[in-house]
Amino acid sequence: MKNLLLAQSGGPTAAINATVAGAVAYALKSDKIDKVYAGCNGIKGIIEGRLVEIGERLKDSEQMHLLETTPASALGSCRMKLKEDDKETFEKIVSVFREYNIGYFVYTGGNDSMDTVLKLSRYFKEEGIEDIKVMGAPKTIDNDLPETDHTPGFGSAAKYIATSFAEIGRDCAVYDIPAVTVVEVMGRNAGWLTASAALARSEGNTAPDLIYLPEVAFDIDSFIDDIKAKLLEKPAIVVAVSEGIKTADGKYAAESHQSGAVDAFGHKYLAGTAKFLTDIIKERIGCKVRAIELNLMQRCAAHIASKTDIEESKALGAAAVEKAVEGVSGQMTAIRRLDGSDYKTEIYSVDIALVANEEKVVPREWINRAGNDVMPECSAYIKPLIMGETAPIYENGIPKHFIL
Amino acid sequence: MKNLLLAQSGGPTAAINATVAGAVAYALKSDKIDKVYAGCNGIKGIIEGRLVEIGERLKDSEQMHLLETTPASALGSCRMKLKEDDKETFEKIVSVFREYNIGYFVYTGGNDSMDTVLKLSRYFKEEGIEDIKVMGAPKTIDNDLPETDHTPGFGSAAKYIATSFAEIGRDCAVYDIPAVTVVEVMGRNAGWLTASAALARSEGNTAPDLIYLPEVAFDIDSFIDDIKAKLLEKPAIVVAVSEGIKTADGKYAAESHQSGAVDAFGHKYLAGTAKFLTDIIKERIGCKVRAIELNLMQRCAAHIASKTDIEESKALGAAAVEKAVEGVSGQMTAIRRLDGSDYKTEIYSVDIALVANEEKVVPREWINRAGNDVMPECSAYIKPLIMGETAPIYENGIPKHFIL
Repeated sequence: MKNLLLAQSGGPTAAINATVAGAVAYALKSDKIDKVYAGCNGIKGIIEGRLVEIGERLKDSEQMHLLETTPASALGSCRMKLKEDDKETFEKIVSVFREYNIGYFVYTGGNDSMDTVLKLSRYFKEEGIEDIKVMGAPKTIDNDLPETDHTPGFGSAAKYIATSFAEIGRDCAVYDIPAVTVVEVMGRNAGWLTASAALARSEGNTAPDLIYLPEVAFDIDSFIDDIKAKLLEKPAIVVAVSEGIKTADGKYAAESHQSGAVDAFGHKYLAGTAKFLTDIIKERIGCKVRAIELNLMQRCAAHIASKTDIEESKALGAAAVEKAVEGVSGQMTAIRRLDGSDYKTEIYSVDIALVANEEKVVPREWINRAGNDVMPECSAYIKPLIMGETAPIYENGIPKHFIL
Repeated sequence: MKNLLLAQSGGPTAAINATVAGAVAYALKSDKIDKVYAGCNGIKGIIEGRLVEIGERLKDSEQMHLLETTPASALGSCRMKLKEDDKETFEKIVSVFREYNIGYFVYTGGNDSMDTVLKLSRYFKEEGIEDIKVMGAPKTIDNDLPETDHTPGFGSAAKYIATSFAEIGRDCAVYDIPAVTVVEVMGRNAGWLTASAALARSEGNTAPDLIYLPEVAFDIDSFIDDIKAKLLEKPAIVVAVSEGIKTADGKYAAESHQSGAVDAFGHKYLAGTAKFLTDIIKERIGCKVRAIELNLMQRCAAHIASKTDIEESKALGAAAVEKAVEGVSGQMTAIRRLDGSDYKTEIYSVDIALVANEEKVVPREWINRAGNDVMPECSAYIKPLIMGETAPIYENGIPKHFIL
């Protein structure tokens, strides 16, 4: 009987541990898998031989629940791309796999991590190594992986973002003087996270009043006009912007307007996008402004994770192990949304070559013509992904976490 | 029978609506009170005659629950100080009170709002107006009001802060390369909110590794030495800093080191405290850095409000109405912590003159000698205030709010 190795890579999310939990849960029930190992700090730690047995600990149901509700990568992460001509590294990986009798390797991550799955599975094929199966399980808050309907981690981040915009909307509505609050959301090229701010809207709450995604060229004059028009309607305006909004020449908005700015050390200073925009609003409109970055909280706020996201993440992890045991290699598990008015999905798997290094952005037709809001189709796509709440275990007033 | 008028003032919190809810609930049960009015946008709206009847709507238990769990000031807020010699304004207030047959006025807020309660109750006394009772109910995330053991809103903000530090700690621990994350917490003069970050620590989580409050003079060289020492222990360091940390000369830390910095418009540029500190760390240590501001989220994240805080806020609102009906005027309700190993409190009321315009800071002996952490006594004081979770009603995946 062979052992299973699990590892995580890329930026953390609130759901990546649920994928590991799902994989471990499947392995513990399988009579084809002996031990379950974690590779610490992704492929980097595996190369260094840093493997830890985790299956035993996770036989305890509270530990398993904690893992599901703990944010970030409990196994540690890395940002490392394998080089195809670096045979030595591949041989090192194989020797570590042999040492621990690994027959199944499941790697969770985003685009770069799927590149590792692709290269590793190709190497095994070329070398005729047939007794080690490599599977990918998707993960990224950015929701920018192709093939899969959406990615684990996105729904939880979107739920935090929508909730925070609803709460910030309440906070900003308390005074009756003109004020513009610009909230910066993650996403360099894909605007999915920023688009999810629209889900904050409800009867009586219009925040965010404007939404700008990186998919549409950003124009500062149109932006100021949009703000001015909104200020005629009501005093407190809340704006959602992607960190990655770019002007028509492809430069980040902040970059293209701040060539002269220097920091305290005389270095070229590049403000955050929200800070840059509030500076401009203050200069051109003169009202009260506030810049907010949702920062790391949007990807690690597991206390308000989406139950739908967590359950799907577990299913994707379990399916990756199931496929590997069935003999599949070089594929990524993915979510297919089924037709019908109710939200229903099925898990399948897809050739990793179709996924690695590709990027899926918000379709132009899901953004309004003016480029300052999303269309109802976009919100309808995101809404089911933020439904449901998890039940973190609280200890001393805060959520308890699984720590390796 | 007289009517009750409720209004809110100052910065929003996650608990200020619970105080209103508690006051309304008491009024609805009282046979001494006829209608319940809300003054929109605090004393400013009252002067303008903007009063709305809210008692009827809050007879519905779901509406009452929504109000309890909605962040910010549902009645609107203002930042307005009454001027003692401005007789015209006081007369205008009296005429509005007469028009609506107001016999009891409860104002929730922080130091400035208690100043309004003080001046109004003094004016009524001087003018011989005995049939209008004015009471204050405390509120401020800063926890800087004297007399009361702590303030409503603080416990919920502290819970969000501790939870976020625990989650950020997980997020920052995933890579094995040196990195310093500086998280800026609200508090210009009082470090209570920043001190509450210490509650994030648990078995396996040391974040925040360092804590800097405005109560101790900030020294940039000692700060860099502290960071260097921590980086010898482990790669990922998380630091909590008050926005209000000041150097020995009383200037804000960022201000005293950034005289030469200019923004894109050539204006003097003052970075946030966290951004400033990470710039310095990058310059002097050269490792990866990240600056985070918890910003408005720390005062409006009602989805993770402290149940203890919400229950106490309701009790303080109810007690303010009770006292007013009993004929008390010119006082603020307050919380007294009772002796004993279990956390127990009682509500009482205190002369408003002892509260208005005073500020309570973290005692020096609750901060360690080096000025880079809090003592266990400080955490023991805060811990009971973050205990328990509320049950927000979720609709479409996000918490539903009460909107006036």
